[in-house]
Amino acid sequence: MSVSEAADTTAETSTGLKITSRVVDWITSDRMQLLNITERINDVVSKSGIKNGIVHLQSLHTTTAVFLNEWQDALLEDVKRFLEEAAQRERYYKHNDPEHSDCERSNADSHMRGMLMGQSLSLQVRNAKVLLGTWQSIIFAEFDGPRSRSIAIQITGL
Amino acid sequence: MSVSEAADTTAETSTGLKITSRVVDWITSDRMQLLNITERINDVVSKSGIKNGIVHLQSLHTTTAVFLNEWQDALLEDVKRFLEEAAQRERYYKHNDPEHSDCERSNADSHMRGMLMGQSLSLQVRNAKVLLGTWQSIIFAEFDGPRSRSIAIQITGL
Amino acid sequence: MSVSEAADTTAETSTGLKITSRVVDWITSDRMQLLNITERINDVVSKSGIKNGIVHLQSLHTTTAVFLNEWQDALLEDVKRFLEEAAQRERYYKHNDPEHSDCERSNADSHMRGMLMGQSLSLQVRNAKVLLGTWQSIIFAEFDGPRSRSIAIQITGL
Repeated sequence: MSVSEAADTTAETSTGLKITSRVVDWITSDRMQLLNITERINDVVSKSGIKNGIVHLQSLHTTTAVFLNEWQDALLEDVKRFLEEAAQRERYYKHNDPEHSDCERSNADSHMRGMLMGQSLSLQVRNAKVLLGTWQSIIFAEFDGPRSRSIAIQITGL
Repeated sequence: MSVSEAADTTAETSTGLKITSRVVDWITSDRMQLLNITERINDVVSKSGIKNGIVHLQSLHTTTAVFLNEWQDALLEDVKRFLEEAAQRERYYKHNDPEHSDCERSNADSHMRGMLMGQSLSLQVRNAKVLLGTWQSIIFAEFDGPRSRSIAIQITGL
Repeated sequence: MSVSEAADTTAETSTGLKITSRVVDWITSDRMQLLNITERINDVVSKSGIKNGIVHLQSLHTTTAVFLNEWQDALLEDVKRFLEEAAQRERYYKHNDPEHSDCERSNADSHMRGMLMGQSLSLQVRNAKVLLGTWQSIIFAEFDGPRSRSIAIQITGL
């Protein structure tokens, strides 16, 4: 996993409201892969200088997702199996059928998983950190890797 | 599909923060139907005059959903089948049973699909447009049509 | 169900933008339990003095969820059965296996349900009330009770 970053864009009113935007990239290594991006998001929030507000995360790819869960090895294996069963790869999809689709990736299952889990997540910023419960980690899910992936991060607040 | 619109409500601080709200209506034609509302949402964002911020979409109906996915005919057929199987129509639900419920629409499956996919979606606004990846479209899903449906759109930003 | 509350934290710009944060607690009584928190959230929104904006709800626990649906007894029974079937309790999970995990709650199913339904929800505030459709209620779902649970509520707006 490697990470790159574009420069920040920041808009600010004279009374202190700030909106900071940044795109962060990851390179994934497996077809289905779960990444703990909590620390990376907290870095971006911390650098924004915003103390209270909202951080919005939006993965820019339909075959990915962003969500919360506990970061524990055994549970992550369960999560992968759960998602494999919720949208099985080895069944018929029109999207994978050359008669109906020009998609050559056979990734209909990846689309179902991404749609089910969602690509957009808002979290509160309190005291310059992302507000998370004791067991909550921010997880980026790759469902059609390996690929280069981008998450747009926007922090709005005071 | 026809579209109507209520007048905008806009609040603005003296330093430029704007909050614009609008309700947009659609009339659907099928029991389950997927609509690509990306262009319509971009129109509303563009007219708001807000360059950077967040657009929040909220469908006002429990038997609908708003989410992201690729807009491709073959995939949309797969999405419909996926949701039909995730919450099957032809099984027993208390909500459809006159002994337990006064609902006459027999739409428990529609409720499960709406709940699973969600009715609330936040997306970033960058340079006066909704930020979307190459393959991301904003999809409104009707699960209990045909009906008249309303989505509340709120844009907050600078 | 009992409720307690921490004091508000409020930040405000000189031109009126306000961000109000509060944590509200519930004590649940069953392993799986659905609570209608609409009125409680509307109280917090009303006290914030914010007329237009966004209310963001974030449950601070991975084995819970916050989502919208109709509040009807028969339907709630269907919702519980739907979620029980979507992530079955009585099957093998590594997270429940002492050979792979130090979790003693055997709550992998609770994690799957929480992840599937999500712990973060944004809703619009219009005229000092949460904007909801006629049949939409805000539901807090407990998937691993009985426990004491906290939801962080943040209202941003004018």
